[in-house]
Parts: sequence; structure tokens; C-alpha cells
Amino acid sequence: MATRRVHFKPSEKMVEIEHGALIVDAASAAGIDINVPCGGQGRCGRCAVIVESGNARRRSTIRLSAADLEAGYALACQTVIEGDLEVFVPPQEEITRRLTAEKTAAKISVPFEYDWRVHQTVAKYLVHVVPPSLTDNTDDLARLARELVKCCDVRGLYAPLTVLRTLAQTLRAADWRVTAVIDRANGRPRLIDVLPGDQTLSLYCAAVDIGTTTVTVYLVDLLSGEVVETAADYNAQIKRGEDVISRIVYASKDGSGLMELQSLVVQTINRLIERAARRRGIAPHEIYKMTVVGNSTMMHIFLGLPPEQIRLTPYITTVNYPPSVLAHELNLNIHPQAPVDCLPSVASFMGADITAGVLSSGTYDTDQVTLFLDMGTNGEMVLGTREWLVSCACSAGPAFEGAGVLHGMRATSGAIEEVWINGATYKPTYRVIGGGKPRGLCGSGLISLLAEMFITGVTDKAGNVNLNLPTPRVRQGEHGAEYVIAWSNESDTGKDIVITEPDTDNLLRAKAAIYAGYSVLVHSVGMTLNDVEQMLIGGAFGQYLNVEKAIQIGLLPDLPWDRFHFLGNTAARGAYMALLRRDARDEIEAIAHKMTYLELAADNTFTDQFTAALFLPHTDLTQFPSIRLILGVWQNKAEAVG
Amino acid sequence: MATRRVHFKPSEKMVEIEHGALIVDAASAAGIDINVPCGGQGRCGRCAVIVESGNARRRSTIRLSAADLEAGYALACQTVIEGDLEVFVPPQEEITRRLTAEKTAAKISVPFEYDWRVHQTVAKYLVHVVPPSLTDNTDDLARLARELVKCCDVRGLYAPLTVLRTLAQTLRAADWRVTAVIDRANGRPRLIDVLPGDQTLSLYCAAVDIGTTTVTVYLVDLLSGEVVETAADYNAQIKRGEDVISRIVYASKDGSGLMELQSLVVQTINRLIERAARRRGIAPHEIYKMTVVGNSTMMHIFLGLPPEQIRLTPYITTVNYPPSVLAHELNLNIHPQAPVDCLPSVASFMGADITAGVLSSGTYDTDQVTLFLDMGTNGEMVLGTREWLVSCACSAGPAFEGAGVLHGMRATSGAIEEVWINGATYKPTYRVIGGGKPRGLCGSGLISLLAEMFITGVTDKAGNVNLNLPTPRVRQGEHGAEYVIAWSNESDTGKDIVITEPDTDNLLRAKAAIYAGYSVLVHSVGMTLNDVEQMLIGGAFGQYLNVEKAIQIGLLPDLPWDRFHFLGNTAARGAYMALLRRDARDEIEAIAHKMTYLELAADNTFTDQFTAALFLPHTDLTQFPSIRLILGVWQNKAEAVG
Repeated sequence: MATRRVHFKPSEKMVEIEHGALIVDAASAAGIDINVPCGGQGRCGRCAVIVESGNARRRSTIRLSAADLEAGYALACQTVIEGDLEVFVPPQEEITRRLTAEKTAAKISVPFEYDWRVHQTVAKYLVHVVPPSLTDNTDDLARLARELVKCCDVRGLYAPLTVLRTLAQTLRAADWRVTAVIDRANGRPRLIDVLPGDQTLSLYCAAVDIGTTTVTVYLVDLLSGEVVETAADYNAQIKRGEDVISRIVYASKDGSGLMELQSLVVQTINRLIERAARRRGIAPHEIYKMTVVGNSTMMHIFLGLPPEQIRLTPYITTVNYPPSVLAHELNLNIHPQAPVDCLPSVASFMGADITAGVLSSGTYDTDQVTLFLDMGTNGEMVLGTREWLVSCACSAGPAFEGAGVLHGMRATSGAIEEVWINGATYKPTYRVIGGGKPRGLCGSGLISLLAEMFITGVTDKAGNVNLNLPTPRVRQGEHGAEYVIAWSNESDTGKDIVITEPDTDNLLRAKAAIYAGYSVLVHSVGMTLNDVEQMLIGGAFGQYLNVEKAIQIGLLPDLPWDRFHFLGNTAARGAYMALLRRDARDEIEAIAHKMTYLELAADNTFTDQFTAALFLPHTDLTQFPSIRLILGVWQNKAEAVG
Repeated sequence: MATRRVHFKPSEKMVEIEHGALIVDAASAAGIDINVPCGGQGRCGRCAVIVESGNARRRSTIRLSAADLEAGYALACQTVIEGDLEVFVPPQEEITRRLTAEKTAAKISVPFEYDWRVHQTVAKYLVHVVPPSLTDNTDDLARLARELVKCCDVRGLYAPLTVLRTLAQTLRAADWRVTAVIDRANGRPRLIDVLPGDQTLSLYCAAVDIGTTTVTVYLVDLLSGEVVETAADYNAQIKRGEDVISRIVYASKDGSGLMELQSLVVQTINRLIERAARRRGIAPHEIYKMTVVGNSTMMHIFLGLPPEQIRLTPYITTVNYPPSVLAHELNLNIHPQAPVDCLPSVASFMGADITAGVLSSGTYDTDQVTLFLDMGTNGEMVLGTREWLVSCACSAGPAFEGAGVLHGMRATSGAIEEVWINGATYKPTYRVIGGGKPRGLCGSGLISLLAEMFITGVTDKAGNVNLNLPTPRVRQGEHGAEYVIAWSNESDTGKDIVITEPDTDNLLRAKAAIYAGYSVLVHSVGMTLNDVEQMLIGGAFGQYLNVEKAIQIGLLPDLPWDRFHFLGNTAARGAYMALLRRDARDEIEAIAHKMTYLELAADNTFTDQFTAALFLPHTDLTQFPSIRLILGVWQNKAEAVG
């Protein structure tokens, strides 16, 4: 057989190898270590190189875009050498970065034209108050109000008691030169505070998303409109129940449960606010407004409203359009007089997180048939166009947020966010957020792991671990059969990081609930999943999600990949938009009014759909044609390679 | 000398006595005991009898009205027998009642046309809410709001958080039949509470006057508009200072003084509310609205606003038009969501008590030149007509409210409210509120006592007690020279009840401040006191005041008695009117806008006027011609009788 010469760059190593060999083998012969996490199955794309010249045949291009091919990219494990080649091997980090770029959170940019003087309801004004005399002895407040009319056209000012309590002192200590902080959200201008001197050069507010599992805070500079800090953490309520139902039960069971939960979420928010403020170098009380979203249970508990009726038929909230409240009423440690705007919801299981998400995702304003999916502890889905919106919700549980899973964790430093399993050796390769040793698995890591375990046969379609595989990584553990992702000496915790069958069960139930939910929703309007022209995915971990893996486990429907768009935390982003502009806030209210809610509890097809979806990827493989195809290809190849 | 027969009824006793004798002597000869507290000087009117037939000459009719004379009344001590007589001797109690009727508080009647459906901003509505179902799953609040639009035309309802917190439970426990309590005072209807079942048959509110010394509460039935209970007590702040200046000093001196005073006055109000509610058989939280008046210092402290600048030139309040607040913000124990309406003031020393008093007295709405005087710890005066209003204020101290006087007390049971001193024996006769043994002297008692001491020579015009009088009642006491009104065995306290020279000094300073105040005010508009066509007197004790005595000590100007009208607590009454009708509330605001305030501190004639008035009745007796006349008559007579 003919011999071919391969010239590797930038190492300038040369090797001769027989015609028909793979580039990965030639590299190996040249002493170049090309990483093949998936065991050379062409699944992971990590072995991408650039064929600069020569004749090479790509057996699989599944990881490569048209632009990649144009640029000469080829997967070393899938590319057959059929002539002399010049091959450029990019540094490993570069490939990693290229592959993950698409999944990385877009920087949170100001979403629309924004000028605080025009769009913002909270403002600061520098006021020179005329000092009093025996002949001009008007009261302090009237003096301030008089100037505010003159300088800033602020008319009919309302001043709350707490602000009045320091007014006399502030005016005099500041020699009658003060900054008035004013809120105009509810018609009549309301004095939030009066600060000494000129403090108009900064103005901060916060957008908060209260998830059942994760709370996210955006600190926003209202002068520029930019998100200047973000902070997220588990909702401290988790210790009182992992999903909304258990929280409602806890809140309802005795006199103090509700206010304990209320206090826990406020503690979480306060901690996040403090963290964001500290990073920005400001004090929490310099935050003068807050917009809050969350599902209806989270909002009820946050406001101290009993959520009991949310879980009892006919599932009635106390309020879908909460009144405006002040920070001190809820013990939030921003400015006590700051308005706290809880965005409107639609129903017990269609909360403000979704109305806000429908806004920020653009679902309310498109001609395409759009399925908007918010995956958190609850899965909420909205189907529609500019003309109509229908929605439903199901309980997924917190597994995708890393909770309720033995070694689950949030998507922060130390979390495994991507896993590849070598189909021959069953050895995993993983990527850790922050690059250090792993501490656990976040949602995208769990989805990636579950998909790999299924594709490589570590589990069967029901999620049972195959204990007969020739590797110590499958074993009987304390919690049943399990698979070891990282040995204790590789982990940051000093313990083996594993996934157990109970973990897998939780993940299966979560993905089945979501799949069943949008299936019912689509069918309810006489459509099929194929009619969905775009699928917009939000939620705590949505922005890191690997669409291929999500389809492989049957979490997402088997549609062309370009129909999926990952938007990250759409709820927080919607809250942020409502924070910036009054018209965006009004649009959310219009969305809440417009949206039809389908109660799955009253739909008799949901349970069937759910049960059918409790497999990898689904009982009915005809619903996942691409997976059926791939399973055949890869599993055959694995045997060949093996 | 001729003998005359006198026939006394109803005792049917007959006596013969010489022509020219007095009826009192004839009665004595007949064995009938007619009380002559003033020692037979014709000053007290207690010996009034009815001459049914016969020839009698009245030497003095000073205690008798034209109607009295028409009815045959004559003073037994002043009526000379010049023919055979038939004389009816009324029971002592009857005379007492007749004499005091004019001074008794008029029953607090509904002051104007009132229909709660038309005039009231707080209302209760019985609402039948439609229960929810899976097909009608609107939130609880929207369901309630929907019905309120239908049944009661209540639109745009605002529901505060605390009410929402019990809404779900109340609706279900009451089987969806509830009473909504709604406040419309500030435009948008606000839900105060939702009560189970039909509770529309009662609706209570309270009007409160916070005096520096005395706090008064009216409990008002808002359905009828009637004051159903009143309660009053000393302001518990008294222990931290007797006048506004000492309160301001206490509030300003350290971090906690202000809130301690705030808490003290709220405790007083809460105690009075509880007392009134208990008497009415309701709970304090059934009170759904409160209107509050008081001087600016009292209002500032009540609201927790630092009053410091009130006493510092140029005497500036934080706010003259306080914002509307809710009961819970001030720890008032009425319904926590009840609106608390603090009426507007004019300046640091022209408070809401006066704007309310100008309303309730009618001063703002008359063609006559009217001097309105509110006598409390501060003396505030308003001069004007329908067209104009000028005002000023001075510090009188709490003496007229029974505080700052050794045996002073409030005008409650056990207080001596009227005193007569026998010009010959210096023995006092007094009337005690409630009729039992005396515990002390209230304001009207002190004025009466001071006048009697002066008229009978117990003190000189400077208030010094004449220790040379032939009675053990004048003596050197612990606090200087004093006069004994009641011996220990006659008093309820088991101790002598006395008035001391320091007490007299306090009373003199109080009355001098007030006299000087209205003198300056009248002169400021180019008038004299004689130009005052009516003098309307309000204040804690104003309704019990004896005009003659008040002129005798120089507290009131020497004008014809029919120009004086005693109105009682005009401040509380104004608060009550503002509580009932929105237009009355608006009128008080118009009064506050219209009233010109004269700062006595900036007036150089006040001190001179004050100093000149520090005597009984005044340095310049030409200002008190009637007293000069009387002094001559009575003192001569006393010598004759003596």
C-alpha cells in the first residue's frame, strides 16, 4: 500500500504513514498528542485540525460547520489520509474555546435604545434649596418641592414619613444643596431619599430572578443601562423542599413556615445584592429600585402570601398582578424606600418568570411559530406567534439545576459542564468550569453525561447501569449501581464523583415531564413538533446546554439544530428590560393578559406522554430519527474500534 | 319700722321681719338654710330664689339674665324686702344646675348634613365573590375586584400586601361572602381589609386631638356620623417636659429622645382608643380611619419627625402638610391599614389644632370681626373674617390644664371647677366635678380661685398672699405663702388642697402671655380690642370657663359678656368634621393656605404687653373698667358686711 507523508505544524514534525490511515494515527506516530475524549468516534469534535493542503477524506463532519470546512477543518479521528498532507494542529485550548463559544453566555447587552432621562421611572436630581428666613418660613418639604418644580418639572411630590424624618437634618448639613431620588413609576412622583450634595453621577437598581432552585441578581447601572454585575446562588429555601410543591406544603403546614421561607429567600437575595454591590464598590442601600420575577409560588412566598391554593384544585393564586411594595416591607437590604416591582403572572403555574421570558425572548413579537421553553425546577412552555400565545407548565424537579442529584451542583467553578466517554475504554474526559479539579456536575454536565452513558452503552435506554462492562468505573455503590466520572485523587473533594441510578431516574423524570409538556401543548393547537419553526430555550442553565446531547437524552425534540436558540436566563433578562423601560414593563403586562394557560392537570394526555418519555431518548424511537441513525453508526463503529 | 310677712315655699314656713331686711335674713329667721358661698356679696348667684309675689327690690342682678328676672328670680343676699312676699326656694342642686348649664359642654352633635354614602371616604361593601373553577381560574384579588366594580362601582382597586396575606383564607372560610373595607381618600380606592360575612352594619373611626398636656379622642360612628364616645387623658409625654420647648429639647438631645416621645404619645392615644372602644363594645382594630390634630411640635413628634428646627430661628417645620400614613407605621392599635390623616398646619407655632379650630369655630366663614382663641399649653389666636385671617401664638404653659400647679389636675371627677370665697370669713365654697370630695383643681377651678382670691383680698394684684388675714387658711407653706382651699379631712387625698405663690405665678404668666398675644395681634391690623365683635374660645377647658372670672384675672379682655362664646375643644371638633366630610377636610387646607402668621418673636411690642399683663387683672386698670367698678363696689361692701 502506498505511503503518504504528513507534515504537522506548528511543531514541524514529519511522518510517513500508509495511505488510508487516520490523521490521529499519523499524529500519534509523529509523537503529537491529539486529545480524543470520545475515543475516536467523531462525536466530540475535540480533535479538530486544519488540513492546509493535500488529499484527505472526511468520514464524518458532524462537529464541523460549513465555515469550518471552508477553513480546512477536519476531525483527526475521522479523516482518512489519501495523499501527502500539511496539517496544522491548533493548541488544545483554542479548539475548546471554538467549540464552546456558541454555548457561552452572550454578554448581557443593553437590549434596546435607552436614555434614563426618557425611559427611566427612577431618577436623581441635584437641587439647590433656598434657605429659610423669618420672612420666608415655608416648611422644609415645601421648599424642596418648590425647587423640584422649578428645576426638574417634578410636580405633586409625595414624601414618605421615613424620608421626612431626616429631611431637616440633611438639608442643613448639606448647606441646602441636595440630591433628590425620585420614583415616578406609579403616577405621582415619590421621594425615595434626599442625599447630601451632588450624588447624581451614579444610579443603581437590581433585577432579580427567584428560581425555585437558583436565585439570580443583576446589578444595573441605570445611567448607562448596563448590567454591571451578576450574582447567583441556590435559593436558601432548598433545605425546606426541592420543588414548589414541597415548598407549598412547608409554607402551609403551620403558622411560621411561610414566613420562614420568605425570610430564607430574602436572605439569599440580600447576600447576592451585597456580593454584587461589593464588587461594584457601592453600598446596598444605593440600590433604588428592584424588579423581581419568579414562578407564582416563589412570588407568593417572597411577598409573604400563602401559596396553599396554588397546589389545590382549581389552582388559584392570591394575586397575579402584585401591588407595588417597598423594599423595607420585605426586609430587603437595598434602600428601604426603593420600589420593588413584582412582574405579573398568568396563573398558579405560569409565573412572572415566563411573562418576562416571553418578552426578553421575543416570543410575543415574531411571525414564526415559536416554542419558548424555560427549564428550571419547573418547566414552562409557551407556544405562539405575534398573534397568539398558549402556555403550560410541568414540574421537572431541580435535577437540571444540579440539586437532587448526589454530586450535582450549580454551574459555577468546579462543576463538570461537559463529559465525553471513550466508547472503548469507558474512560470519561470532562471539562470543568474554571479549569481546576472537579467538585461535581452541573445541569449541562449531567445531560452530557447521561447522553454519553447511553450512547456508549454504560446504561441502557431505561437508565440502568451495565455492571458487566470491563471497567472498574461501573460498580454497585451505596445508592445502587453507579458510574465513576472522577476518582477521588482527581477530584477537588477527595472523593469519587459518581452518578447513581437514583440520579439517573431523577434526570429521566425531569426530561420526560418537559418533553410531555410541550408535546401536549403543540398538539393542543392541532400542530406537531415539526411545525415549530423556532425553539427558544431559557432557564438557569439553558445557555450552556448542548443541543445534540439534549436531543440524545430526549429532553429536546429531534428538530434541525438551527431551530434551537439558547437564550440563558430569559426571566432575569425580562426583569432587566422591565427595569429599564416603562414600555417594556407595560408589554409584560400585555403579555400576561394575552396568554392562554393550558392546565395540564386537566389534560388527560399528559400522563401518557410523560410515561412514554421516561426512556432514553423515548419509547418511540420514530420520534427521534436522528438518534436512531446515530446509534446505529456509532455503536457499530465502537464495536469496530473496540 | 313696718313688719313684712314672708311666706317660703315649698317648705310652707312663714316669718315676720322688718321692712328693708334681706330675703336671706328672713330665710335664716324661718330656719331655712340658703347657701351664700360668696358671703352675701351677690357675686356667686347661688342664693337665687323666685319672688312669686310682693314688693322686693333687687340691689344687684349681676347673676341674673333678663329671662331670670322675667321668671321672678332674685338673689336672696341682694334683695330687699319692701312688702309681704311669697318666695319659692328651689332645691340647691337645681340652682347649681341652672348656673352651670351655660358652661356645660354642648353634646357633640353632627355638625352638618351627613350621609356616609355621599360624604365619607371610608366605606364597607358586602361582596359575593364568584368561586373559582378550572375554567375560571382568575386570581382571588381579581375576583374580588371584579365584583366590587359590578356591585359598588369601585374601580382600580389597590390592595396592600398585608391585606392580600389573608385574602385567600378569608374568602374560602367565609364561603366567598365578604365585607370589603375601602378607603378612597387619596384617589385610587385602597383595600383596608376584607372581613368574613356581612359586617356592613357598623363602621367606626376616630378623631384625635394631641394637646401638649391633654390628648382627646372622639370615637365616631361613621354610619350616623355621631361621636359615640369621648376619652381624654394627660399626654404621657408630660413626664419629659411640660411645654413644647422642653419636649423639643428632650427630642433633640440624643438619639432616642424623639422616638421615646413618639412612643409615649402613641401609648396615650392607644389607651384612650381602647377605653372608648371598650365602652362602645368594639375592638380597636374595628376603627378604620383616624384624623389627627395638634400643634406642630406634637404633630412632628407623633410622626417621628425631629422638631428641633421648630424652636430655632427662623422656626421651620419639616412639613406643614404631612403625607397620609397608615396606622401601623406609627404603632397605633387601630386597624393597621387604617389611614391616619394629619391635618395641615401653617407654621411652627400655628398648628393643625388651630386650622381645625378655625374650621369648627366658623371663624373662617363670618362677617363679624372675630378673635378665635385656643387656650391650651400654647395659646394660639386667629383674628379675621370670611375675607382675611391673621394669627399668632404664645407659650402659656400647662397651668390652665392643671399641670405645673401643685394641686392641679385635669377637669375630671374630683376636680374643683368653681370656687367662691366668703369675703368676710375667707372660707371657700367649691363645686367638685362628679360631686364627691375634691382631689385638686382643674383649669376653670384655678381661674375661679385666683379671681376670688384677688377680689376678696386674699392676694394683692401681684398675686402675693396676704398672710395677715384673720384665717388659718393663709399660711407659710413648704413652697412659700399659700391658701388652703380644702382641709385634709375634706379632701379625697387626705391632704390639704392648697394654692401656692409659685402656682399663682404660673397662672399669671399663662394669662399674661395670652392677653399680650391677642393684644399684639389686634394692634397689628390697626384695631383695638373693642373692635372685636365676637370672641370664640376653644381649648381643653374652654367650655367650662367662667367669663366673669376670666376677665377678673385679666385672661380675657373686658368686653361685654355676650361677645364671648365658649366652644370647648375646637381642635378635636375640627378633626371630627374633617373625618366626616371630604369638603370639610379640603376647607381646612384652604384655611391653612389663607392664614397669615405673625411671628411674635419678631414683634418688639410683645414683651412690653406681656410684662404689663403680669398683674391682676392688668397694670393698666383702664383696660378693665368693669373690674375697676366692681372692685370698688364689692370691696366696700365686704367691709360693710365684715
